[in-house]
Amino acid sequence: MSRILITSGPTRQHLDPVRYLTNASSGQMGAAMAAAAVKAGHQVTVVTGPVDVAYPAAAQVIRVISTDDMLAACLQVFPACDGLIAVAAPCDYRPVTVSRHKIRKTGNPLQLELVETPDIVASLAAVKRDSQWLVAFALETEDQHLRAMQKLERKSCDLIVVNGPQAIHAVETQVDILDRGGQVLGHFCGPKSDVAQELFGAVACQLIVPRCPPAS
Amino acid sequence: MSRILITSGPTRQHLDPVRYLTNASSGQMGAAMAAAAVKAGHQVTVVTGPVDVAYPAAAQVIRVISTDDMLAACLQVFPACDGLIAVAAPCDYRPVTVSRHKIRKTGNPLQLELVETPDIVASLAAVKRDSQWLVAFALETEDQHLRAMQKLERKSCDLIVVNGPQAIHAVETQVDILDRGGQVLGHFCGPKSDVAQELFGAVACQLIVPRCPPAS
Repeated sequence: MSRILITSGPTRQHLDPVRYLTNASSGQMGAAMAAAAVKAGHQVTVVTGPVDVAYPAAAQVIRVISTDDMLAACLQVFPACDGLIAVAAPCDYRPVTVSRHKIRKTGNPLQLELVETPDIVASLAAVKRDSQWLVAFALETEDQHLRAMQKLERKSCDLIVVNGPQAIHAVETQVDILDRGGQVLGHFCGPKSDVAQELFGAVACQLIVPRCPPAS
Repeated sequence: MSRILITSGPTRQHLDPVRYLTNASSGQMGAAMAAAAVKAGHQVTVVTGPVDVAYPAAAQVIRVISTDDMLAACLQVFPACDGLIAVAAPCDYRPVTVSRHKIRKTGNPLQLELVETPDIVASLAAVKRDSQWLVAFALETEDQHLRAMQKLERKSCDLIVVNGPQAIHAVETQVDILDRGGQVLGHFCGPKSDVAQELFGAVACQLIVPRCPPAS
């Protein structure tokens, strides 16, 4: 039994009390990965942005709004975990200034200055122990494998799961899982719950002891 | 029996295939208003942004993503309706340019130029017949009644419902309903379903024939 941290869903970065910037993410894939990990007998903590999906009853669920909130929750939970599966799509830009009151419409264009939010996977990579493993998801719209491998390197991941924007809010998905050498360990497509089972199997086989026997 | 158009939920304005600007809105109040109108025997069409709430089975539901989509759907439906109850929180700014590909993070700030989207209630007010009525919701964080009355005037509404940001994603709400003279016709608080019943009663009393008898 491993202790696994799963991030899921989008985060929100508010401009004012009513408007916010966010990433398209329903939390469905995060919930499906959590269900697969629970089913395999692991202890799961989900740190999730605002979504309406149901997480497995056996998982501990921590709900957050912003990327900073998600990072803070992960930094608390991760030291007691064996690994991370980062399915979340955290909002990676935030407005430099957040208005306390609703911004008034004036009829004129509005200039918004955005800065990057902290990178959750890279931040956890920076504090991880040697025995801890990291799996990230990369949603890319072009040069998918190349960019996913750059992300894997930059964030010191063990494995990376690549998908495209057609996965967003869809019931079905299509993913590749790549290792540090760039080798495609699996290509899975179908309903997210089935894909999550297969993906989790590939993760467990690579990273969770007892390791799979090598193919003969 | 009246034919009533209800707008509900947020709309989204994409920056790129994965990131978007939106307004906080769960669609709960729109769904509750639709249920109240259906229960009172009216024919209801809901034009809704992306939400997970359940609308009444008896209502026609048209799903949209952006503010332009919502306006286009409303312009099609409204001519056949007797009135509009605009509960939606349409995203009122959109990026001037929308990237076809996911915007790359560079480590540098991102300047975003936003312009206003079309105002749905004002656009419907501009094409409405004399016999058609308009009720809008105003979410204000300061000078609530003053700003709501400015909105009522600017958008040629018959009635305006005022609420605050504490209503967002909450089960309970607290609203005032004001007429064109600025008179508070009602102050309702409690679960959104109860408040919607009371609000719909006030709307029906003022705007839907047969009119209520004047208080003696």
